[in-house]
Amino acid sequence: MRDQRTVRCTYYIESAKPPADAAAVMAGEQSSGTFVPVPGESPRIRERHAAHVVEVRELERRSPSLPSRSRPEQVRAANVTIDIPMENIGTDLATLWTTIAGNLFELGELHACRLNRLELPDDFVAAHPGPAFGIKGTRRLIGDAAGALIGTIVKPNIGLSEPEFRQVVRELARASIDLVKDDELMTDQAHLPLERRIAVATEEIRAAEQVTGHPTMYAFNITGDLAGLRRRHDMVVEAGGRCVMLNVPVMGLQALEWLRSFSEVPIHGHRAGLAASMRADGLGVDYGVWQQLARLAGADQLHVSGLRSKFYERDEEVAGNIRGLLAPLGATTPVLPVLSSGQNVTTPAPTFSAVASTDLLMLAGGGVAAHPGGPAAGVRSLRDAWAAATEGVALADAAERRARAGDDALLRAVEKFGQGAG
Amino acid sequence: MRDQRTVRCTYYIESAKPPADAAAVMAGEQSSGTFVPVPGESPRIRERHAAHVVEVRELERRSPSLPSRSRPEQVRAANVTIDIPMENIGTDLATLWTTIAGNLFELGELHACRLNRLELPDDFVAAHPGPAFGIKGTRRLIGDAAGALIGTIVKPNIGLSEPEFRQVVRELARASIDLVKDDELMTDQAHLPLERRIAVATEEIRAAEQVTGHPTMYAFNITGDLAGLRRRHDMVVEAGGRCVMLNVPVMGLQALEWLRSFSEVPIHGHRAGLAASMRADGLGVDYGVWQQLARLAGADQLHVSGLRSKFYERDEEVAGNIRGLLAPLGATTPVLPVLSSGQNVTTPAPTFSAVASTDLLMLAGGGVAAHPGGPAAGVRSLRDAWAAATEGVALADAAERRARAGDDALLRAVEKFGQGAG
Repeated sequence: MRDQRTVRCTYYIESAKPPADAAAVMAGEQSSGTFVPVPGESPRIRERHAAHVVEVRELERRSPSLPSRSRPEQVRAANVTIDIPMENIGTDLATLWTTIAGNLFELGELHACRLNRLELPDDFVAAHPGPAFGIKGTRRLIGDAAGALIGTIVKPNIGLSEPEFRQVVRELARASIDLVKDDELMTDQAHLPLERRIAVATEEIRAAEQVTGHPTMYAFNITGDLAGLRRRHDMVVEAGGRCVMLNVPVMGLQALEWLRSFSEVPIHGHRAGLAASMRADGLGVDYGVWQQLARLAGADQLHVSGLRSKFYERDEEVAGNIRGLLAPLGATTPVLPVLSSGQNVTTPAPTFSAVASTDLLMLAGGGVAAHPGGPAAGVRSLRDAWAAATEGVALADAAERRARAGDDALLRAVEKFGQGAG
Repeated sequence: MRDQRTVRCTYYIESAKPPADAAAVMAGEQSSGTFVPVPGESPRIRERHAAHVVEVRELERRSPSLPSRSRPEQVRAANVTIDIPMENIGTDLATLWTTIAGNLFELGELHACRLNRLELPDDFVAAHPGPAFGIKGTRRLIGDAAGALIGTIVKPNIGLSEPEFRQVVRELARASIDLVKDDELMTDQAHLPLERRIAVATEEIRAAEQVTGHPTMYAFNITGDLAGLRRRHDMVVEAGGRCVMLNVPVMGLQALEWLRSFSEVPIHGHRAGLAASMRADGLGVDYGVWQQLARLAGADQLHVSGLRSKFYERDEEVAGNIRGLLAPLGATTPVLPVLSSGQNVTTPAPTFSAVASTDLLMLAGGGVAAHPGGPAAGVRSLRDAWAAATEGVALADAAERRARAGDDALLRAVEKFGQGAG
């Protein structure tokens, strides 16, 4: 058991210095934060508040990953683990983030600095409520929907008139889809204000439920100014909406935490912009670190790219991130991983094979809207593809079987999107 | 004159595709956001809402800067300029950021994506109040202090007891320093709560002013949960404090914008964590872009690293960023650039030589606290060094002249910190 009074961080670093010395600089920057000894830095303070380097694993030498003031030909790479006294941080997320992911990235003598692993003390985790709804609460609000949930994004995301938007939502809700979400670019633009989107979508969803019996959830993007965040949330709730969406990296983890403190509905956490501090080798923060904080801050549903997506992460990375999301985090309610980008009937099989779970929300854009038989056929084709994946039936076989039974939705989707690579 | 109804962005990109095709994908992602044509994407919508590629400047081929699903040996690099209709965005900062710095960084077919330049339409700029105090307002609150302002950071930043903290502030305030600030790691920890810091610092500053006649400004770091942001601001103001500080990248631009809407005192904008999305070649956002939004959101004082600092940016980059901060932004009040890290008597000369301005706040840590003659001598030595820099007098000559006139503060600082390289 490690010391539960410290926050443990593992960084990948590069430096011209010996790695142990570079790690010592980082530990200093994260606790006492100065290089010129100053009066008042007493033994008592060092004893109680200093961060400690607990492990240095040197790797081979390489050329620098990041630009700096100095330009060494070769640097020494290492994974270093540092323990920071929890007393320095308390339980505040912003203070934690400043400490573990603040000035460190700027240090000129580091030619790479990436936070790859974060182990929080139990007391830190326990100080945060985590998701209020999570997987269970989301399913409950969608009529106790079981299995992988099928969702989609309103497209085109910019420029729909109100009648056009109404038509899109009507078709999707009548297709018995589990969730419809705003695109991350849809906020409160004048050509289709959030207030009208809420009114129209909740109206169409209620009407569709009378026919289908299935209560589609709509994630309304309430990203925007903080002064209006609560008002926008309240608009959703008062109209009978059952989900709000936040672009978390744009708004910040504190905005998510604050929304969690008053939200009466699940929070759909988008990750637009996260890659800016995640994608470079040797810089920023790994998804596995960020997702812990997003969960503590209270996201009920959290984006994680998707296998076979148009985004950069390779399938094994995405699968690892999904497994990370599904792993326990203290006593918090499990969060619902949201798969997006390039999702269609070919993706359930590799996804289920990689993560062995259907506690997922799969967002299919073209896979729903561009299905030749229309959105309802698109939704059916995706549910059939998930059934095939969990039963271990090949997609082509499942498509033929369903077609023989009178529903060619999967067959036509397979014709359009292919059978997938594996 | 360019079209004032669009937001113009210039990105550095790499792709295996022809640059014009890659740019078209980006324009699509930033406006209609899907690759499979969907019903409803009408000519009207395209006409009114599509983003347009206005320039593609191809560079030489190179190896990819960023990891992706695909691993081409060589990619085609280019600077591409894209115009996005302002109507798609409105005037909301979060929507702007999501549009220009959101999913684009994740695109698998881009092997680099960095937003290097942002040109906002006049109407967008005019929709934001910008700083409420800025350079002028800050100077006014420090007794109309002229020239480069001298500040420092409380050190050690973690672990000071209340009596120790009192002693530090007392010495600094009696040294007639212009500004004292919390370290970015000092928030509201239990061992020295913000409320006590405010009480002690304002008390000591008032007492010192009776002696010195100089009203030192203290920047209290109110970074933390958003639910408590206003309460923390109010604590500062009610105690007579004259500045609040925010770790802007950690809290988000929206938190800054919100704080601006009610703050009664200048906002000191720290940039801890910004480098995570700024330092990698080929990824993220340039400082010149970010600072525009931080100014629109209302930072009165904004960190910009420092020449000769321990941070990664080279002096010419720092100087360019300072000049960018000092450049006009619509009708907004000019923001005060804050120089930090490694600042001492050797840095005024190269700084003034590079930016030709004293509208600066120079934070010197060790340069004040570790001066052999104590903080008051540290502050005098820095003021003398700035006087020498603006008068074009060599540091050693100025130090001797001052020593002959009876003040050896600069001389002793030069002995400790050197005369600088140039």
